[in-house]
Formats: sequence, structure tokens, C-alpha cells
Amino acid sequence: MSFESLWASQSAIGRDPDTGGYRRGGWTPTEREATHWFTDQCAARNLTLESDGIGNLIAWWNPPQDPAFRPGIVTGSHLDSVIDGGAFDGPLGVVSALAAVDVLRAEGFVPSVPIGIGAFVEEEGSRFGMPCLGSRVAAGVLPPEKALGLTDRAGVTLAAALEEAGIDPAGVARSPLLERMGTFVELHVEQGRGLTAPVGVASSIWPHGRYRFTFRGEANHAGTTLMEDRHDPMLTYAMTALAANKQARLAGARATFGRLSVEPNGTNAVPSQVTAWLDARAADDATLQSLLAAITKQATERAERDGTTLDVVPESVSPVVDFPTGLRDRLVDVLDGAPVLPTGAGHDAGVFSAAGIPTAMLFVRNPTGISHSPAEFAEPDDCLAGVDALAAVLKDLAT
Amino acid sequence: MSFESLWASQSAIGRDPDTGGYRRGGWTPTEREATHWFTDQCAARNLTLESDGIGNLIAWWNPPQDPAFRPGIVTGSHLDSVIDGGAFDGPLGVVSALAAVDVLRAEGFVPSVPIGIGAFVEEEGSRFGMPCLGSRVAAGVLPPEKALGLTDRAGVTLAAALEEAGIDPAGVARSPLLERMGTFVELHVEQGRGLTAPVGVASSIWPHGRYRFTFRGEANHAGTTLMEDRHDPMLTYAMTALAANKQARLAGARATFGRLSVEPNGTNAVPSQVTAWLDARAADDATLQSLLAAITKQATERAERDGTTLDVVPESVSPVVDFPTGLRDRLVDVLDGAPVLPTGAGHDAGVFSAAGIPTAMLFVRNPTGISHSPAEFAEPDDCLAGVDALAAVLKDLAT
Repeated sequence: MSFESLWASQSAIGRDPDTGGYRRGGWTPTEREATHWFTDQCAARNLTLESDGIGNLIAWWNPPQDPAFRPGIVTGSHLDSVIDGGAFDGPLGVVSALAAVDVLRAEGFVPSVPIGIGAFVEEEGSRFGMPCLGSRVAAGVLPPEKALGLTDRAGVTLAAALEEAGIDPAGVARSPLLERMGTFVELHVEQGRGLTAPVGVASSIWPHGRYRFTFRGEANHAGTTLMEDRHDPMLTYAMTALAANKQARLAGARATFGRLSVEPNGTNAVPSQVTAWLDARAADDATLQSLLAAITKQATERAERDGTTLDVVPESVSPVVDFPTGLRDRLVDVLDGAPVLPTGAGHDAGVFSAAGIPTAMLFVRNPTGISHSPAEFAEPDDCLAGVDALAAVLKDLAT
Repeated sequence: MSFESLWASQSAIGRDPDTGGYRRGGWTPTEREATHWFTDQCAARNLTLESDGIGNLIAWWNPPQDPAFRPGIVTGSHLDSVIDGGAFDGPLGVVSALAAVDVLRAEGFVPSVPIGIGAFVEEEGSRFGMPCLGSRVAAGVLPPEKALGLTDRAGVTLAAALEEAGIDPAGVARSPLLERMGTFVELHVEQGRGLTAPVGVASSIWPHGRYRFTFRGEANHAGTTLMEDRHDPMLTYAMTALAANKQARLAGARATFGRLSVEPNGTNAVPSQVTAWLDARAADDATLQSLLAAITKQATERAERDGTTLDVVPESVSPVVDFPTGLRDRLVDVLDGAPVLPTGAGHDAGVFSAAGIPTAMLFVRNPTGISHSPAEFAEPDDCLAGVDALAAVLKDLAT
């Protein structure tokens, strides 16, 4: 099957007809449909599918007469999306992995070690608030009991969502799948404008934190309460959002308030509470910490003036990931000197690398730099170049 | 039945056990339960209940052997609440009206004109976004087709909500009930700290507008998009919220952003759109207009800098209501020189007054000035003083 046909065979799953964006939250019907598409494709290729208790999948192309299941080269990515996300973030890595295996088989290549294609669940954390949820549990960095207690916006726990999807929550544990992941190579669409060649190689992933800011004040009548008598948490939040933008610019970093919840959220009531989630990232851990400290300081000072209170809880913090230079340089050589660049985006590759698995990433050019948006795009020729690059890398590593 | 027992007989309906606040949105099960409580109380008093097509109610105490149904004196208020609202805003006027009739009957008073007790639906507009929805439709200032097309946050139209509540939407029209409303007197808890006596009389209602601000930008990845490359509508909104607060202080007016909706509302995505509802009020129409203009100007300038767009739609604008001075002075005389004060809160009384019905309002002291909050409170003695004041006023007007 051509890359184009393979791409088209999954591109309608979970696509919102109004926005063109994708809604594939972990363990939702659309995400499950995408997963079934994946298992069908693996079956059609006679790959040996393995899954773990939380639903991560690796489909193996084993060498003929392989004496035993041994650690292999795993590629792949994820099939879930952010809310109203783009088509490429995740699926490009999975589709390209299947296409690369097709390319290698068409060439008659026979791997000397197993090659696996992985699809890891809830990478975006768009449903349960924890990015790389599947890979974190698999790698043992997120305890199963903590993962199972996470709740989505409707108050559904992960445990309940798994049962709903027909998965026994008792099986959620550090994953045996990773014991056979000798090397991991994730292909992903680039998410900024940093890559000007069709394909590049990752140097590092910026440290990244999600922090829940809870601003509490006093609900009151919007018409009768003097401005001077208010304790309005919306004002404290608004100033904090502007401060975050300014501090991120000063630090050459990123700070975003993209998710908000207001109580009681009535037009004619001063809010009692505003909950806002800060996504902060920087080139190194020290810069990230000082960015968070600067934003929190300004927010706290404003809260004192507003007569409100502020509570900051880190929901997830991932330190910097520097991919091993030896593997990285080997990929650059295979790809005739492809450019090397860092990324501000988190990936399962970062979790696996931090867990000690030799890991590398390939990026496919993003002409506009737009991602996490229905407008996310990659040129078809660049996607094909990505497949060829991934095939070349797998061939090199599995020869 | 004592005022205290009467009060207690409805005070559990729609009260949130966690916050102590009320959730009685128009035509929801809790609001319907409150309405059934009202019709039961009217039946127990042998009052003649009339309703109109949208569900407004007036229960009549007619003079004995009254030759014909004639225009009378109507009192009452509303039973719905804002989201997580207080116990007094609305119900105090309805309970006090029933209690005042009980007082007059116990005295052996016989009215020379009918006395009606009204309960008007969706006064707060907390479900369909339009304050005084029932009274506006009744008075003919909101066309039925426009009202029926309003939607709640779940996308349910008023027409569908009425059907759900067993009310035929075809009956929604200008109300015949108002033809018999010769005078209207609404008792209400004060919602600021302006009243220091137990009971006061209203002079006017500030003009009031609800404006929907839609800020549009470009969704993008929170980790990879340079701060400089963003078109983040959250920043435009945040600055607008701070500007509204500042401009309202400068104008001695009120401006509140208490309700927000963010798209896609994901932690790791720069938002594509922020919708925010401005509640603005001022002592006169000119000040309200200049307040709105000043906020919109600052917001538009910021939008240009952010590369976002702003669209402002007035959802409802109510001009100033000056209650007729003759009726007002008559109430002040009956109440031995009770204080006269304006209010920043909207009321059905304002709609009826603007529609040409002689209207007055009584306020019961609010010791903290807190309203639209579970913390809203009035002293029991002040509530009893309110009942006595209302009884005296009804007696004076119906003698």
C-alpha cells in the first residue's frame, strides 16, 4: 500500500467535520477506532502484536527462524491527539513506520534483529492531564495507582475509562514491552519553524512543566459590588497571564495559559475561583525553574493587592532530555548530514530516553511551524522523505 | 404559617450540598420544584392562579364578590437563581409576598382591589443568558421567536427546554397577565452595602449591558511556538479584563468578566478563541456607553498588537429605569421616611416599569453587601421588617 493510501486510511478517524481538527482523547471511541486501524494494519503485514496492561502496543517484524524473542529496534509514535489537534502530530510517526517496513520488505531486506512498530497511548495527555501517560507508566516513572486515579474533565478516573474500553485496570503496571526495546527511534512532525531541510535529527527535548494555578476570591454580584470591595480572582489571573508572556519572552522560553476553568462562570457574578493551567518550557532546567518562580512571584504580589489567594501545584514536570550523541550522530551519518535541532515539544521518546533506552528522533519539516491546531501541515514530499529516512535508519540499525 | 416556616419550606430546593449555593436555572428540575412549591402555597391560601405561555405566574387574592377581574396590585419576585447563588435573591420577595398576605388576612383586612403574588421565570438569565427573560417576553420587549431561539450552554434551545418542562412553546407570547397588573411592587434583598436601615425604597435601576467579547487568534503548540510568533487571544483577553476593571473604577461604574469559554481549552495548546462576557453597569446611560467604548478601544488596540481579532456583540442592554416618584414617595410615607436608594442590580420591576406599569421596589438590608454568592445573607429581623413593610404598602395601595 502506498504511503498516501495508508495515510488516507486513518485520516478521517476522529476528525471534527466543522474545524477539520482531531479529537482522539485516550480511550475514547475515536482513539479506539484509530487503534483498531493500527492493529488491522499490523495483522495485514503479519506482524506479531504485543500489548501491555495500559494499552501500549508494539507490533514485531521478527527475523525468520529467530531463535528467541530478543530486544529489537522499535519505531512508531502515538495515535491520540490534543483537543482539535492536527493530523500529523503522532499519526505521521505510526504511518511512516508501517510505510518504512513496507519499503524495506519491498527491497527484500531481512532484519538481523526484530523491528517493532509502537503506538503509545495518551501521549498528549489531553484527556487525563498527564502527557506521555502510556509511556510513563510503561517505563515505571508513573506508579500505576497514581495513574489509575487521574480523572478527566467529566470526573471519570483512568481506571473507569479503561474498564469502559474493555481493559482490566489491574493489569496497569511497568511494561514488559520495554524489555525488548533495545533502541527507540521516533519520527515526528516538527512543531516549530526550526527545521528548513525535509528531515532532521533531534538533539534534545526542553524541560517542560504543567502547573495548576488556583486563584480563589469571593463570589459577588457584578452589578452592586463596588469595584473597590471586590476580591476578584479573574483580575489576579489576567495579570498572571500577561506576566507569564512577558517573563517567557525575557527568558527566551515558553509560557502558555491555554486551559481555564471559572467558578461559577456566570455573566453577572464576580467569580469565586479561576483555575488556570500553565504550560512552561525552557532550554534547560534552571531557566524553567526561574521562569516559574518569576511568574509565581508576580502572581502572588497581585493576589495580595486583589485580596485573593493563589495556590500552585505542579501536575507534571519533565527534566531536560539530551538524546545520546552516539546514536544521534549515527543517524546524521545515515542521512548524509541531516541537520540537528532541539525541540520544545514533549514526546514518548523523551520518556524512553530518560528511562535509559538508547533513543533518537527524526523530524519532518513543518513549513508554517503550526502544530496542535487543525492548520498543522507537512508537505507530501517531506513526508515521503521522512519514510525513506526512517527506512534507511532502520536498515542501518537492524543490519 | 410563620415567615420562618414558610422560608424553610423552600430553602432546601436546589441548594448545593457542597457549597451551600443555589442552582435553580430556568426550567431545570430544581427550578420547577421551586415553582411547584409556590403553586402549592397559593393553593393552600385559596389564591386564584394564572399563568402565561412562558410560565410566569400570578396568584390572585380577589376581593369577595368582586364584580369582575380588574387590574390589581401585584407583588412578588422570582424563584430562579444564578449558578451557585444565594438564598435571598428572588425567593425573599416571593416568600415575603405570601407572608404579607398572611399578615393582612390575620388582621382581617379586605382588599378593595385584587392583590396578586407573582413569580417570574429566568430572572437571572443564568441558563439562557438573557436576564429578566420571563418578564421581557411578558412585556413584549423580547419577541417570542427570538426568545425561543436562545440556547443554554448545552445547546438546548428555550423551545426545547419548555417542551422538556411540559410547556407548549407555541404559547410563548406577550402576556395577558400584565393587563391586570395595575401596580407592581417588588421586594428584594439589597445587593450592595448602600442600605443601613432594615428596609428602603428604590429610586432607580442603573443601566446594564451584557456584551459578548469574542477574541480570535491562532491555535498552536505551547512548546514549540516562539512567543513572538503567536497570535494568542488569551493575552488580548487578559489585558481587556484588567482594562475593564480600571475603566470601571475611573467611571465609578461596574465592569465584570465573570464568564469565559476557551477553545480548544487544552493545557499544551495556544488557544484559538476566547469568548468572554462583559457585565457593565453605570449610574446613567451615557456613562455606560463611554465605559463600553473605553474598554473596547483598549481591547482593540491590544488585539492589533497581538495579531488577534475582537468582535463585540451586545446580548442585552437595559437603559436606566427611574421609578415613578409619586409611587415611590407614597411608599416612603407609608414606611415613615424609609431611605431611598438606587441599585446596580437588574430586576423584573425594571422591565415592568419600562413597559409603563407603575412600579416600585422595597429593599431589605444586606449587612455584608454580598450577593450572587452562597454567602449572601439578610438578618431574620430585617426579613420580618420587610414583610411588615410590604404588608403596610399593600394595605395602603389596596384600601
